[in-house]
Amino acid sequence: MSDLPTSVRISEEGPREGFQFEKGFIATDRKIALIDALSQTGIDHIQIVSFVNPKLVPGMADADEVANRISRQPDVAYTALWLNGKGFERALAHGNELTLRGSIQLCTSEKFLKRNQNRTMEQQLAAQHTIVQMYKANGVPVERGSLMAAFGCNFEGDIPVERVVSLVGQILDVASAHDVTLDYVSLADTMAWATPRSIKRVVGALRERWPDLDIALHLHDTRGMAIANAFAGLEMGVTRFDSSVAGLGGCPFAGHQGAAGNVCTEDLVFMCHEMGIETGIDLDALIECARLAEDVVGHPLPGSVMKGGTLEK
Amino acid sequence: MSDLPTSVRISEEGPREGFQFEKGFIATDRKIALIDALSQTGIDHIQIVSFVNPKLVPGMADADEVANRISRQPDVAYTALWLNGKGFERALAHGNELTLRGSIQLCTSEKFLKRNQNRTMEQQLAAQHTIVQMYKANGVPVERGSLMAAFGCNFEGDIPVERVVSLVGQILDVASAHDVTLDYVSLADTMAWATPRSIKRVVGALRERWPDLDIALHLHDTRGMAIANAFAGLEMGVTRFDSSVAGLGGCPFAGHQGAAGNVCTEDLVFMCHEMGIETGIDLDALIECARLAEDVVGHPLPGSVMKGGTLEK
Repeated sequence: MSDLPTSVRISEEGPREGFQFEKGFIATDRKIALIDALSQTGIDHIQIVSFVNPKLVPGMADADEVANRISRQPDVAYTALWLNGKGFERALAHGNELTLRGSIQLCTSEKFLKRNQNRTMEQQLAAQHTIVQMYKANGVPVERGSLMAAFGCNFEGDIPVERVVSLVGQILDVASAHDVTLDYVSLADTMAWATPRSIKRVVGALRERWPDLDIALHLHDTRGMAIANAFAGLEMGVTRFDSSVAGLGGCPFAGHQGAAGNVCTEDLVFMCHEMGIETGIDLDALIECARLAEDVVGHPLPGSVMKGGTLEK
Repeated sequence: MSDLPTSVRISEEGPREGFQFEKGFIATDRKIALIDALSQTGIDHIQIVSFVNPKLVPGMADADEVANRISRQPDVAYTALWLNGKGFERALAHGNELTLRGSIQLCTSEKFLKRNQNRTMEQQLAAQHTIVQMYKANGVPVERGSLMAAFGCNFEGDIPVERVVSLVGQILDVASAHDVTLDYVSLADTMAWATPRSIKRVVGALRERWPDLDIALHLHDTRGMAIANAFAGLEMGVTRFDSSVAGLGGCPFAGHQGAAGNVCTEDLVFMCHEMGIETGIDLDALIECARLAEDVVGHPLPGSVMKGGTLEK
């Protein structure tokens, strides 16, 4: 049997994932209620909003109000996503409410990049240098590298492992060029192309090149593989995962209707606990949050453990 | 990376699982339509009905008619489940339509056994000898051993690995006593207690004791672990899986409402194909069957790939 890690760090992405993706109107109070409930479960990192164009993402029109009105817990980092300088300016205004964390982000797929950011591979790399300078000028720590579409792309197909290794190298080079030390590099299966086998292959190739690099996984469940992919990551020693309570969310840019959210948080926590891996999270409290999430969005969500129950009597 | 098998055998259990579990009425013609569609996908084994008490399982009241009226394909084995001599008599009457296969079946959990069959462990073992004699007397081959609740039980909790090994030994002993050679032993995660780690532990213990024993997995998805458990099985060299199209089904005896069906067939086939493992099944045709299954039962079913799509353009 493989050696599994003894503990993992889970970043909850459900509020941001879900509220940007859900089609129906959700009252700001209800969004805040879910975030506040999540912050009582032992989860220590919650991505609560994205500062994006409300015309394009109406569900995030109240992002400022959400950031202002949550009941902040001292041990929880509340984070936000932004996609450009304008979004970052909005996030900066919440420096007291939010934990701002910069990242160096590349995408493996030129076609996805062209379609969503109208950039070439060279332009995205050049932009990262500018972005890191912007973070440093504003005192925002750059802790994270991030590689989108690390396992495949709806528009470009399979992504060669060599390209992933090369792009992670570029991320690390950008960090070095600005005297930044990244805590980890996150591999995002943005369009749900990964299988457990490709998780092992890609993580293995990165480990071979950078044995001490801390790797995180961001796993969408569009094709039902997320929990198996998470297990494959655990077997490769991955200890950082993004996840979505109740399986909230989906990628609005993935190009198809069936896009699903991140691996379901409570299912992932259940699997970890039952395999002897600590998460620091109260699973029963988390399941209550998953049920609240269904109530907040007004329709069933895909999580399994909230329906099937834990193994505790 | 572990060595994965090059091909697997998948037994479709969706019709039997689903029609016995669904609460609403389903017309016999619709059941037959789904079975006939499945038999055009390359699946070579479909469990279509159970011969059980129609008062207890009303969805199987038309089992005889279903067995009579399917459009049999020459390369497909259509099988049935029965739980006692009376059910077996009914199955025998369909010797021309069905492929009757006997099995030696034990359960790991005395509490489950007591509750559902009102038997002790000793009584269930003794009964297997009688059952094998009954199969032999009727010319029905005994090909399969089966162990229920192999990974845990809602009524008894965790099941020690040693007990699983001991009970598989008892199954093999019953076979030997009657000069029967089993093709394989199936481990059923009847109440969805397995994790990928326990799959590896249990299969590993059996492999150590019986290196040449062919093992099958029957994985319920009640707690969202089925696809990860299937992957763990593949990594241990397991090449036989039961599964349910669209994730149909659930165990009526598991003792809770959230019980889910077997691992979803098309999600399992997707995972296998994307990892280079052959199944002999046409995934696109199978996805059409999954959509038909949703239409037949009249509500959404949990399968992911039928919503998220394959990776083929």
